[in-house]
Amino acid sequence: MKIGILGAGQLARMLALAGYPLGLEFVFLDPSADACATPLGRHLHGDYANPRLLAELADSADIVTYEFENVPARVADYLSNRTRVHPSPDALAVAQDRLLEKNFFRSLGIRTPAYEAADDPSALERAMTFIGYPAILKSRTQGYDGKGQSLLTTAADLPAAWRKLDGVPAIVEARVPFDREVSIIGVRNTKGDTAFYPLSENLHRGGILRVARNCTDDPLQAPAEEYCRRLLEKLRYVGVLALELFDMGGQLIANEFAPRVHNSGHWTIEGAATSQFENHLRAVLGWPLGKTSARGHSAMVNFIGGLPRPETLAELDHVHLHWYHKASRKGRKVAHATVCADNLGDLAGRLEKVLHLAGQTDDS
Amino acid sequence: MKIGILGAGQLARMLALAGYPLGLEFVFLDPSADACATPLGRHLHGDYANPRLLAELADSADIVTYEFENVPARVADYLSNRTRVHPSPDALAVAQDRLLEKNFFRSLGIRTPAYEAADDPSALERAMTFIGYPAILKSRTQGYDGKGQSLLTTAADLPAAWRKLDGVPAIVEARVPFDREVSIIGVRNTKGDTAFYPLSENLHRGGILRVARNCTDDPLQAPAEEYCRRLLEKLRYVGVLALELFDMGGQLIANEFAPRVHNSGHWTIEGAATSQFENHLRAVLGWPLGKTSARGHSAMVNFIGGLPRPETLAELDHVHLHWYHKASRKGRKVAHATVCADNLGDLAGRLEKVLHLAGQTDDS
Repeated sequence: MKIGILGAGQLARMLALAGYPLGLEFVFLDPSADACATPLGRHLHGDYANPRLLAELADSADIVTYEFENVPARVADYLSNRTRVHPSPDALAVAQDRLLEKNFFRSLGIRTPAYEAADDPSALERAMTFIGYPAILKSRTQGYDGKGQSLLTTAADLPAAWRKLDGVPAIVEARVPFDREVSIIGVRNTKGDTAFYPLSENLHRGGILRVARNCTDDPLQAPAEEYCRRLLEKLRYVGVLALELFDMGGQLIANEFAPRVHNSGHWTIEGAATSQFENHLRAVLGWPLGKTSARGHSAMVNFIGGLPRPETLAELDHVHLHWYHKASRKGRKVAHATVCADNLGDLAGRLEKVLHLAGQTDDS
Repeated sequence: MKIGILGAGQLARMLALAGYPLGLEFVFLDPSADACATPLGRHLHGDYANPRLLAELADSADIVTYEFENVPARVADYLSNRTRVHPSPDALAVAQDRLLEKNFFRSLGIRTPAYEAADDPSALERAMTFIGYPAILKSRTQGYDGKGQSLLTTAADLPAAWRKLDGVPAIVEARVPFDREVSIIGVRNTKGDTAFYPLSENLHRGGILRVARNCTDDPLQAPAEEYCRRLLEKLRYVGVLALELFDMGGQLIANEFAPRVHNSGHWTIEGAATSQFENHLRAVLGWPLGKTSARGHSAMVNFIGGLPRPETLAELDHVHLHWYHKASRKGRKVAHATVCADNLGDLAGRLEKVLHLAGQTDDS
């Protein structure tokens, strides 16, 4: 079986590394000549909307999937008319638009922050009378890692925040005074079987995920699974889906979902019985899902901007390096490391050492 | 860093899969057009002794290593004069010749079965007066998976066994009435650091490894490590080395060693803190070695001749498939599966199911 992936970044790279042991082959479509997954399969090099390359992808792959959600809708539609595509264009469409996404959450009884569409400056001003400060103005589409977002603390922030949007449709959301950010990785296969990983507790800085650790016996596991299950089932979703949530005083509030494998689930490579990457592949293949239970405790640290010498990381016991073989660049995720331990005390000690190393090269 | 590997079979494939997360790249030299590691790196396609390809390998790889020991000595010498090669040609030379190997064991105080060189029929007859029956006649070189071996139970077996050798130099060894077969995987890096995995207990049938499981707290761990350490240090060895041993009433008797990653260590991918493949790469790179401690209990089953439908294996919880993407062929190792468990009871139950599936396609 050959899996086609739109995108050949680190998520595609880790999908391929998980897929080879299952006997799979890979073909990637990516406009970047040196995209980091390309040594692991055939590389169709060009624009995502290039008709010749899309036809070649559809013809050569048995199943097509994505490593990111910002695929033009016409591309997803084109492919799904020619081959098996998971997840479906519908799921992508919802995830691509923060307004549709929030409306979708609301329709499923999933709690969200207060939000309003803001299509022009006066709509934004009106919305703020309902939302209140602080709030966050976000472009409805194309945002990731905090890009296209502005914090609004007073009415004086509105004009500059609006100008920064450069005319794209927007949504304004109340900023939630959360206690912690968590995410749940769920997976559903073509037969409708579902499975959920233990919650990840996530730490962001500057809009970029820095640390994710797995939570065992978290009191919010069951309600998070319930929310995620509603999404998977309503979308008749196939593949891995990540739902980001705020924990505010023990109440879960949905932030957004990603229709793909997710950075907050990278710890599953070493820290779960089956990784999110393998389970995404099992799901789209229609295979039984693998066990999602944790193997001990684990935490993941992102390396942003650059990486210390890998042999320095190799000195640390029970630390697993995943270097994406990307060149250093300001604000770029170039690697992650997963720390494993049998108990939380050991985990904390090991994590501290990795964070120290990550801080040395982090330029963001 | 680019690693060159002589051979592009499943061992090279698993080395590459372990190496990408470390940020490594790979180039393989292999005469087979469809060798199973070739999707994971550049493939220099041709004979191992092809001077043009060897020069290309030496020029493009920062370090060259092997996935098997039967590399012509002149190839190893040629490469080691042009680039860094680990393990050294000396280690290969000893491992390639069962007589040199046994002499080497003896010189290090490592117990072996009784053995004698048998260069002609009369030498064989003389040797048998010392060795006694049952014994095994083996070609000195080029043997693996029981190939080139004959069991001698009475003097009447000698003529046919000798003819089967077809004139190649031979060694005759006493057959050891062992209680079990074990192996120890050791690793030594360029700085001289060493590490050893928990013993593997191995089950062979028809000369081919069928099952290997890791042993925790085995009373023979310390003496096995001591034997393996002598080999690593005397050879100033760099990389992973596997020493196969017989346990006869609690005494260890050396059978042979392999200067490479080894089938009996495949369980380390899921079952140890660091896999043998990653540690081989760390060793040849001169990085600190990763922890070799076991993660729970694990056992590996080889699939010989063919594989059931992979989705059938995927139904079994805590079973990890490694399909080498090789076509089915009688007697060929096409895949392995690793079974993991927190306790020996669960391990036994899961292992039984995998053995049942392996038995359905095993044609050897």
